[in-house]
Amino acid sequence: MTSYSMLKGAFAPIVVAQDSYSLSSLFNSSKNTNRKFATIAAVGKDNAANENEKLTKVNGNASTYIKYSGAKPKTPILDTINYPIHMKTLCVEELVKLADELREEIVYSVSQTGGHLSSSLGVVDLTIALHHVFNTPNDKIIWDVGHQAYPHKILTGRRSRMGTMRQTFGLAGFPKREESVHDAFGAGHSSTSISAGLGMAVGRDLLGKDNHVIAVIGDGSMTAGQAYEAMNNAGYLDSNLIIILNDNRQVSLPTATLDGPAPPVGALSRSLTRLQTSRKFRQLREAAKEVTKKLGDKTHEVAAKMDSYMKGMVSGQGVSMFEELGLYYVGPVDGHNVEDLVHVLEKIKSMPTAGPVLIHVVTEKGKGYHPAEIAADKMHGVVKFDTQTGKQVKVKGKTLSYTQYFADSLVAEAEKDDKIVAIHAAMGGGTGLNTFQKRFPARCFDVGIAEQHAVTFAAGLATEGLKPFCAIYSSFLQRGYDQVVHDVDLQKLPVRFAMDRAGLVGADGPTHCGAFDTTYMACLPNMVVMAPSCEAELMNMVATAAAIDDRPSCFRYPRGNGIGSFLPLDNKGTPIEVGKGKVLKEGSRVALLGYGTIVQNCLVASEILRSVGVFVTVADARFCKPLDGNLIKKLANEHEVLITIEEGSIGGFSSHVSHFLALNGSLDGNLKWRAMTLPDRYIEHGAQSDQIEEAGLSPKHIAATVLLVIGESRERLHAVDNYNV
Amino acid sequence: MTSYSMLKGAFAPIVVAQDSYSLSSLFNSSKNTNRKFATIAAVGKDNAANENEKLTKVNGNASTYIKYSGAKPKTPILDTINYPIHMKTLCVEELVKLADELREEIVYSVSQTGGHLSSSLGVVDLTIALHHVFNTPNDKIIWDVGHQAYPHKILTGRRSRMGTMRQTFGLAGFPKREESVHDAFGAGHSSTSISAGLGMAVGRDLLGKDNHVIAVIGDGSMTAGQAYEAMNNAGYLDSNLIIILNDNRQVSLPTATLDGPAPPVGALSRSLTRLQTSRKFRQLREAAKEVTKKLGDKTHEVAAKMDSYMKGMVSGQGVSMFEELGLYYVGPVDGHNVEDLVHVLEKIKSMPTAGPVLIHVVTEKGKGYHPAEIAADKMHGVVKFDTQTGKQVKVKGKTLSYTQYFADSLVAEAEKDDKIVAIHAAMGGGTGLNTFQKRFPARCFDVGIAEQHAVTFAAGLATEGLKPFCAIYSSFLQRGYDQVVHDVDLQKLPVRFAMDRAGLVGADGPTHCGAFDTTYMACLPNMVVMAPSCEAELMNMVATAAAIDDRPSCFRYPRGNGIGSFLPLDNKGTPIEVGKGKVLKEGSRVALLGYGTIVQNCLVASEILRSVGVFVTVADARFCKPLDGNLIKKLANEHEVLITIEEGSIGGFSSHVSHFLALNGSLDGNLKWRAMTLPDRYIEHGAQSDQIEEAGLSPKHIAATVLLVIGESRERLHAVDNYNV
Repeated sequence: MTSYSMLKGAFAPIVVAQDSYSLSSLFNSSKNTNRKFATIAAVGKDNAANENEKLTKVNGNASTYIKYSGAKPKTPILDTINYPIHMKTLCVEELVKLADELREEIVYSVSQTGGHLSSSLGVVDLTIALHHVFNTPNDKIIWDVGHQAYPHKILTGRRSRMGTMRQTFGLAGFPKREESVHDAFGAGHSSTSISAGLGMAVGRDLLGKDNHVIAVIGDGSMTAGQAYEAMNNAGYLDSNLIIILNDNRQVSLPTATLDGPAPPVGALSRSLTRLQTSRKFRQLREAAKEVTKKLGDKTHEVAAKMDSYMKGMVSGQGVSMFEELGLYYVGPVDGHNVEDLVHVLEKIKSMPTAGPVLIHVVTEKGKGYHPAEIAADKMHGVVKFDTQTGKQVKVKGKTLSYTQYFADSLVAEAEKDDKIVAIHAAMGGGTGLNTFQKRFPARCFDVGIAEQHAVTFAAGLATEGLKPFCAIYSSFLQRGYDQVVHDVDLQKLPVRFAMDRAGLVGADGPTHCGAFDTTYMACLPNMVVMAPSCEAELMNMVATAAAIDDRPSCFRYPRGNGIGSFLPLDNKGTPIEVGKGKVLKEGSRVALLGYGTIVQNCLVASEILRSVGVFVTVADARFCKPLDGNLIKKLANEHEVLITIEEGSIGGFSSHVSHFLALNGSLDGNLKWRAMTLPDRYIEHGAQSDQIEEAGLSPKHIAATVLLVIGESRERLHAVDNYNV
Repeated sequence: MTSYSMLKGAFAPIVVAQDSYSLSSLFNSSKNTNRKFATIAAVGKDNAANENEKLTKVNGNASTYIKYSGAKPKTPILDTINYPIHMKTLCVEELVKLADELREEIVYSVSQTGGHLSSSLGVVDLTIALHHVFNTPNDKIIWDVGHQAYPHKILTGRRSRMGTMRQTFGLAGFPKREESVHDAFGAGHSSTSISAGLGMAVGRDLLGKDNHVIAVIGDGSMTAGQAYEAMNNAGYLDSNLIIILNDNRQVSLPTATLDGPAPPVGALSRSLTRLQTSRKFRQLREAAKEVTKKLGDKTHEVAAKMDSYMKGMVSGQGVSMFEELGLYYVGPVDGHNVEDLVHVLEKIKSMPTAGPVLIHVVTEKGKGYHPAEIAADKMHGVVKFDTQTGKQVKVKGKTLSYTQYFADSLVAEAEKDDKIVAIHAAMGGGTGLNTFQKRFPARCFDVGIAEQHAVTFAAGLATEGLKPFCAIYSSFLQRGYDQVVHDVDLQKLPVRFAMDRAGLVGADGPTHCGAFDTTYMACLPNMVVMAPSCEAELMNMVATAAAIDDRPSCFRYPRGNGIGSFLPLDNKGTPIEVGKGKVLKEGSRVALLGYGTIVQNCLVASEILRSVGVFVTVADARFCKPLDGNLIKKLANEHEVLITIEEGSIGGFSSHVSHFLALNGSLDGNLKWRAMTLPDRYIEHGAQSDQIEEAGLSPKHIAATVLLVIGESRERLHAVDNYNV
């Protein structure tokens, strides 16, 4: 038997190439209106043009402008495309027109629903080229993160449902295997596409199939360690795999705010720039001619241009990190030139033993929609907007987001304590830390999409006596879990984890749902685990975490806005006694013990119950670890029923309470303990309120549970159902 | 305010250098016995020499041989060193002698205790050079993984305790902050050192201190994504940080078996080889002279040699992946040449604004101890051994390890089903998959130390209809947790996780303890979670996992040997009905419901209890998810007391049982439920039996808990204590 890697032939580099930019500029200079050789260099010039006409130049083609009237666009070619099979016979000119129509369709569609706009606009041309050249679902296209998959969804049978995007029962905002056979792999978190694609490629080889596998990954996603692990393994296994690096010079998560763009972090981005700008001209060798001949019916110019992209074929010393990792580097390719894209993809497709290929494609987020192109955040994630102006229909709430309250109170703490530093993983906007960055630029660290590093980096800072706050979404912290255990908790280092997006998150769906954090954090011996019931408590817990300096701590808070609680002066919270909960409302027979903002639902439930004559106690646990033993014993002793409620999975707060009750013998008698947690299934995307209903954690569910446990009559249950929350 | 990165000056490359190997060979050819210019090229030749004399050439110095007599070695220089401060005045010749003595000391010491041998021998010279040049604890040295830290421990005040290595109450096998101020960061899992070091470096800068931070990381650890994330961030932040890449051409975990060495996996290893072999000679530029002049009292030859290492200073195009990531590359340096190491480190130390530097040091595992050098596994981890022959004192048990039973039964499954494939993360030896690799080389994938990639790669394979078994230690799977949630469980892909080293693991201590897996896996909605009570059950669960092809599954099993249960024919297990436990022993009043191999302790406990007249039921849950509801209801209905027992943290099996009991109203009456889990603290390294005692999960603890809960007399408790297990 031979090992897997021995089964694959080694890749022999054969062509020497030259600077694609120089070359294309050369071609371009002679005939600037000829779209055949449109260059990336031309892209930058588009931005300033025609602004007051609300026109936008698309695809580097001076003859094509799109006018956004706000009306449903006319899309004669797109109307003929239900599935990729319908795109196969289109010529390049028609594909270019299709790209224009697809952009108009996306802008119109997202203007009605909200969603991820600019990433999708950036890959319109690439998506068209991919679906023209490859044959999904037989060939596999994997969209990294997946928020750029709108054009893919439109071209793969889901156009008519685009109006339901991210809504309850509607299309998911990310690729999803259940939704379409054309979605080869589900996504939501970044940097998984190469790993998944390599698995598919190796699986194909083992099964003796011959389809193609294409992973499309952004430069932001490339900063995550998993992408590197996967490239290193791909270079070693040498299976045929096409990796498309979609380089848009932006970390693709919402790091930017409307105040300004976030520059790409990490040294890698500098290397990518270098790849784009500093390649030395090299003479074509004899070997190159052999390859160029095979292009047959193409013109010599096109052939030469193709070769210019095949830089990976330059033998000898590595010309990029990707080649060091064993990938065959091609590029950089103008990601808005459909013709070039089609040619490059066809060329790669025709190579039977290419091994792992990385095609470096340069795109612009928001491409073709002027308001997005000029926006600081490129209109990355938007609510409904006016297509003519790009102005979003933002409803200003009475309160701010929990995210913002966190950021404001952390700034307030940091004003008093210069040891406080903040770390986030390419989520300055999402975590609110851009606010902190602005006030304390030298004390805020965006480490890129690198949660593992973020956590251990914070641990390193803690060893020096600094007070790191590591702000990472609940679901993303899963990616740094080992580091939380091994580098922080085991060493009892005082790193503070601010876990945003805890619980159900609405439109982003199950990939972003913060279901498991209480479970996976509270089992750690040294960790203080807490959750505020409102924004004022959040501010107090930020102060508490700042004060806990002998061990790690964490606090979770949800997506969405505060309840309007009375905020501390200057946003500066007061530390809470560690392990101290509080009773919010005295009742009898039944005690509701909530953990986190679900306490608000408990309070509403108590009102519902009051309306039917049942008066319950409501308590705010505040701490899952250490538990408030006295509070729990008191509640257990003084009530017939104790219900623990949390917006999290099994194994978390409720489990800790049950162990405590058992250990104290409180469950040996007639106390009825019930746990209300997230159900043991994933809750699909949709409105947060729908999700809470689906999860069975609404005030009415809580009230009904109380009535059922105390054996109340059916009439009272009906009364609950009719209660107007 | 300026941002952190703006505070740091940009690094300006100024020197052009040449191939160190060519250069040193040049020097070496004229005077081969002069250790000053001993080369790595000479290393290979040592292996064959003097084998039958049991002599080993050390440090590339033909005049120095160490004779291992088995007696305690004479160490006149080492005897004068209690702390690094005592090494400062030693000259190079004395440092070289110290290295020889240190090797002898380590070989002698580890031969008495067992432990990690060859990694420590490989870094003796480096450790001496580091402690000679830098000043711990003010300067911070971070040992990645940490099993190579024995020489560091000996030189930092712990020499007298080396005989207690990895034993109960003895020295830890890894660096540990609690153990010494010289241990800047604890370790055990790989690839954290650069992140931690960067945190310390940035912390130092923020606090205005000027100490040095040095992270020592192996080439194996470099395959993990976290190392890449950290380098990328280090290149961006540009803080002074010294990264020493200890390149020993081996993935440093026990991937090899005695059958043969494991070649390094991943394309990166090829790049490192290229760095060592294919550098082109380049002329020194004028600028280089300026730097070399500063070396002052050194000879011109030495100065030129130093420059030859400073390849990172070559401006213009990147010469390695490390430079792409913004690191200043120096090397490769002979890691067994103390003089060169001292000079290079002194040079780097003297550069005030070097930014992040990567020094590529080439070492040999087991260096200086011939039996280790020639062993297939380099004697990576050993039990007690004879110093003259290297022969380990292996006590052959009556049964094999659970690891081996897993591997054998997986091979048996794979014989019947060619869709079965196996994936591990640089742990072919540790997971037993080398056995699988030997039988099915094309179906076994070692992805390097890359658990994140391993999991998603397995998910990709599963989408193609293959049946991946992903074998990863319980504590290491923490590093792929997000991928388990997001790529496997959420998509309900049938990936099977074989979680070895579940529960307490003995000498490796808390970093390797598999405490949390049941908690973090059983909260996932689609996961089947199981644990065998013996090796025959393990084989049946391998068959069960193979059969479960519509959703993910996992099973945990411990370090250590089987109990001698009756094995299925040809190691081919029979699938168990999913969610079905079984009663092993019928009793009354009290039911013990165990999960995993702790069931054996429950059975022993039942014998102890029988001796004092208490007859308990013992049941084997087998599944944590789905739970065997009928079994649990039956146990709850027919007993006064139900005790759940598991070798895992809170939030796992016991919590799932308690939720089930509550939901069914089984806790509303007088049933006494108690949970026995791992305690809420980390259990230190030591004998596994000591750890079980410490954890309170021994048979006697279980028996005593039963007696306490049923209110038995003190006399009976004493009887339990006197019972001879």
